[in-house]
Amino acid sequence: MGTMIQSGDQVILYHSERMNYLVTVQPKGSFSTHRGQLPFDRIAGREFGDAIRTHLGFLFYLLKPGLADLAMKVKRSTTIVYPKDVGTMLLAAAVFPGARVVETGSGSGALTTILASFVRPDGRVYSYERRPEFSANARANVERYGLASFCEFFVRDPEHEGFEQTDVDAVLLDVPEPWTLVAPAHKALKGGYTLVSIVPTVEQVRRTVSGMEMQGFARIHVKETLEREMLVRTTGIRPADRMVAHTVYTILGNKVNEPGLANVAVPEPADSPRDET
Amino acid sequence: MGTMIQSGDQVILYHSERMNYLVTVQPKGSFSTHRGQLPFDRIAGREFGDAIRTHLGFLFYLLKPGLADLAMKVKRSTTIVYPKDVGTMLLAAAVFPGARVVETGSGSGALTTILASFVRPDGRVYSYERRPEFSANARANVERYGLASFCEFFVRDPEHEGFEQTDVDAVLLDVPEPWTLVAPAHKALKGGYTLVSIVPTVEQVRRTVSGMEMQGFARIHVKETLEREMLVRTTGIRPADRMVAHTVYTILGNKVNEPGLANVAVPEPADSPRDET
Amino acid sequence: MGTMIQSGDQVILYHSERMNYLVTVQPKGSFSTHRGQLPFDRIAGREFGDAIRTHLGFLFYLLKPGLADLAMKVKRSTTIVYPKDVGTMLLAAAVFPGARVVETGSGSGALTTILASFVRPDGRVYSYERRPEFSANARANVERYGLASFCEFFVRDPEHEGFEQTDVDAVLLDVPEPWTLVAPAHKALKGGYTLVSIVPTVEQVRRTVSGMEMQGFARIHVKETLEREMLVRTTGIRPADRMVAHTVYTILGNKVNEPGLANVAVPEPADSPRDET
Amino acid sequence: MGTMIQSGDQVILYHSERMNYLVTVQPKGSFSTHRGQLPFDRIAGREFGDAIRTHLGFLFYLLKPGLADLAMKVKRSTTIVYPKDVGTMLLAAAVFPGARVVETGSGSGALTTILASFVRPDGRVYSYERRPEFSANARANVERYGLASFCEFFVRDPEHEGFEQTDVDAVLLDVPEPWTLVAPAHKALKGGYTLVSIVPTVEQVRRTVSGMEMQGFARIHVKETLEREMLVRTTGIRPADRMVAHTVYTILGNKVNEPGLANVAVPEPADSPRDET
Repeated sequence: MGTMIQSGDQVILYHSERMNYLVTVQPKGSFSTHRGQLPFDRIAGREFGDAIRTHLGFLFYLLKPGLADLAMKVKRSTTIVYPKDVGTMLLAAAVFPGARVVETGSGSGALTTILASFVRPDGRVYSYERRPEFSANARANVERYGLASFCEFFVRDPEHEGFEQTDVDAVLLDVPEPWTLVAPAHKALKGGYTLVSIVPTVEQVRRTVSGMEMQGFARIHVKETLEREMLVRTTGIRPADRMVAHTVYTILGNKVNEPGLANVAVPEPADSPRDET
Repeated sequence: MGTMIQSGDQVILYHSERMNYLVTVQPKGSFSTHRGQLPFDRIAGREFGDAIRTHLGFLFYLLKPGLADLAMKVKRSTTIVYPKDVGTMLLAAAVFPGARVVETGSGSGALTTILASFVRPDGRVYSYERRPEFSANARANVERYGLASFCEFFVRDPEHEGFEQTDVDAVLLDVPEPWTLVAPAHKALKGGYTLVSIVPTVEQVRRTVSGMEMQGFARIHVKETLEREMLVRTTGIRPADRMVAHTVYTILGNKVNEPGLANVAVPEPADSPRDET
Repeated sequence: MGTMIQSGDQVILYHSERMNYLVTVQPKGSFSTHRGQLPFDRIAGREFGDAIRTHLGFLFYLLKPGLADLAMKVKRSTTIVYPKDVGTMLLAAAVFPGARVVETGSGSGALTTILASFVRPDGRVYSYERRPEFSANARANVERYGLASFCEFFVRDPEHEGFEQTDVDAVLLDVPEPWTLVAPAHKALKGGYTLVSIVPTVEQVRRTVSGMEMQGFARIHVKETLEREMLVRTTGIRPADRMVAHTVYTILGNKVNEPGLANVAVPEPADSPRDET
Repeated sequence: MGTMIQSGDQVILYHSERMNYLVTVQPKGSFSTHRGQLPFDRIAGREFGDAIRTHLGFLFYLLKPGLADLAMKVKRSTTIVYPKDVGTMLLAAAVFPGARVVETGSGSGALTTILASFVRPDGRVYSYERRPEFSANARANVERYGLASFCEFFVRDPEHEGFEQTDVDAVLLDVPEPWTLVAPAHKALKGGYTLVSIVPTVEQVRRTVSGMEMQGFARIHVKETLEREMLVRTTGIRPADRMVAHTVYTILGNKVNEPGLANVAVPEPADSPRDET
């Protein structure tokens, strides 16, 4: 017994490594591929894991999308957040069922979607975005995935107006100048909890880290994550020829309650063994 | 207003990049560091984000651990599952609040802990392990983190006895011979949903992928994830000198309901453009 | 005082990161670019480092190509050998002025060109290739770079006929089945010197390493080399978006004179510290 | 027939992956290992590729060192230059038999050794170093490898005194502030030829690139090279657990003769396809 696909569901239509699509099942009409038509009324009513054929006889599997699919294939007007980088955030910051999380910018809603999925059913994602049209697009994407009731969208510039929430479990900054939001983020966060910023350039890393040190964050560290595909062929196993070489640096730090102390220099003894873990 | 730390809580005691500890707050006694003593009764009652000093005057912050900390610092008798690899799993497979997830082996319970954290409050992690002492250790770790009520432990060899559950949202295999469990995993999984295996060697990749192809999985792919720390120093920004070069390959695939079809060779046309995304 | 460019010289015509060409200066005619024409008679007679303009006014610099340029931009009918991988070879094996080096296959002559450049003026590259048309193309490329007098080309299958040379300083195998050539390579090499093989898949690594162990090689090790571009922009420094994720694994080993001994198992003591350098 | 080892030769004494040494054969005495003594008079007179046993019966092979071994195992008082990074330099810059190359600082002479090896017999390495004791150590290392006659050492600060040579084929800067040497390097180099700088931090990259742009270099680009070992075991093939994550960024650029032109902004048309090669 499986899960019956219904109109409105997200489905991966999988023909091959090179040809696969994330589709919202529509009440009527067809999805067109280079291998032929797939009428939606033949998808609805089937179960995930079933296969259907186009009118040309080509096989497509109906697969359940993961969050990585939603993130990578969202309708977007901005840069994407890659699953590899979201993974780093989720494991470092306190995002869990019931968590209250602040995020800005809303972007295309890809990260909002993933966060909403993980804070269900009692948590909330508070998603801030300065540009109304981006906020609207993000909201539409979250609705498409059925997660709107776990999100609140704010069209606002948090640099000047701050965040409305306090005592949140995590703050995630995906903006070009995260250092301008370090103070409001500090104010919004629970003591001891994690602020995450993602930025593409090293200069942004420098300024964000400096801002965090001054504002009162400890355990600040910066990571980059790389992902490489391995190809398993009858001719042999080898890594893919090409890969994404860079998306963002991820900056992490925990809020401390008394910022002044953070700057107390406590000298390491000269013989301190270097812990490389 | 913050979160008051209580006996039994997990706390990161953070002095510096090189000196920080994940500690369970005890009813009495002290935690000893190379920088002096930290009595537990001075930790309990403080808030996360506060700082305390050892009897020698050194500063330690009381920080909230993330899941990455729990995973990396669990009491372990087996190989660890790295956060970078867990991130890949979480984004690819259907692990979400309410999900029912099968995992084997239980190992040290690190992955169990992370999964339990994300399926709360209505989901379940079914954790299988052949070796009773490992299962007991994993259970103890999950209890330490207060997540035992979301887990069920089975001391059982799933190769011969299978998994008890059906229609689960995800199956995660962290065993030396995952190909022996592909058939029970297929049986346990919902159609269209994702099986994840992690293995250190290329030969294991080959055998697992072959087993999945034969058993009825589609969209099989294999990834490795690398993580590099960036050091932000007053003398300049640069990557860390050393890094973890390899942990596991992650193998992913979606269950298809009619295995026979999976082997139908559908030729790609010669002019098919290569999609490198 | 610089170096005057003459007809027959190799020149990099550099307009921008995206638009640059490796060109052999011809006695007459023009080189056409999307930015206009560059007549060869305006290139010859200039010095390396000078700039000229197309008839449309766009600036091109006349730069001296490095070996990496020759390797990457050779006229080719086969897979290329990447500079990053050639670098590994050159530093590991004994390729130096005066060295006698065996190489197979000749491929497009890219590696031959680099080797010839480094064994000048008294060394020799002995380049073997089964397919006459490939050998001819490789020879033509080497001639284009003015290095033909340091090379000898053999159209021959070394698996059955062996290499003609003995006591060579290095043997480099760039063929699909290097394990078939391990015995002739062992015969051709000086004792203690290095055999290098490059292969794209892990299965080829396995078979080549096994062949080398049996034939009598010690200090066998396998490497992969990755290269990532950093972009220095006014907007910030960051790694390039995309990179080459894989070309080949490089297998290295030194010939031992008495193969039987190589298989003597000398147990490591249990307390042997692991040298990670 | 092989190559007989003589007193003064460099030899790799190879017992196992973990236990191997680069040794200069002495006229008398022994080399001590954890597996027993190896008397030099039993090494001299043998051939490369032979095996000898310690007085405890353990086997050591006598192997020919490559340049990578000389670089990694030089007697050093400074940071090492890694073979992977030297490979990048050799392929990008004009280092070849007969080349005249300027290098600074001399460091431990590791890079000097490699350069000297490749410019033989008619080329020269001009090695500049401010600190007399470093220069002396570098010279001693180069002498140990029998390459002193291809090198000239200068104890001098090139920032203020410049380089003595002009029209050299390559300039290699391995100093903390390469931007201070860009002008003398430009003056020393042949037009169109390549300047190489290696630096560990991103800030150094920025300043060096800016200096090169202003001084008159084109085709400036920056690379980092990573190298990962693959372990081939009977239990399977997999990458090594740990690796060197960072050594240096390599900055490359070609001298242009009329610096002013380098700053002429030539607009790219909007539809310019991005060449990712």
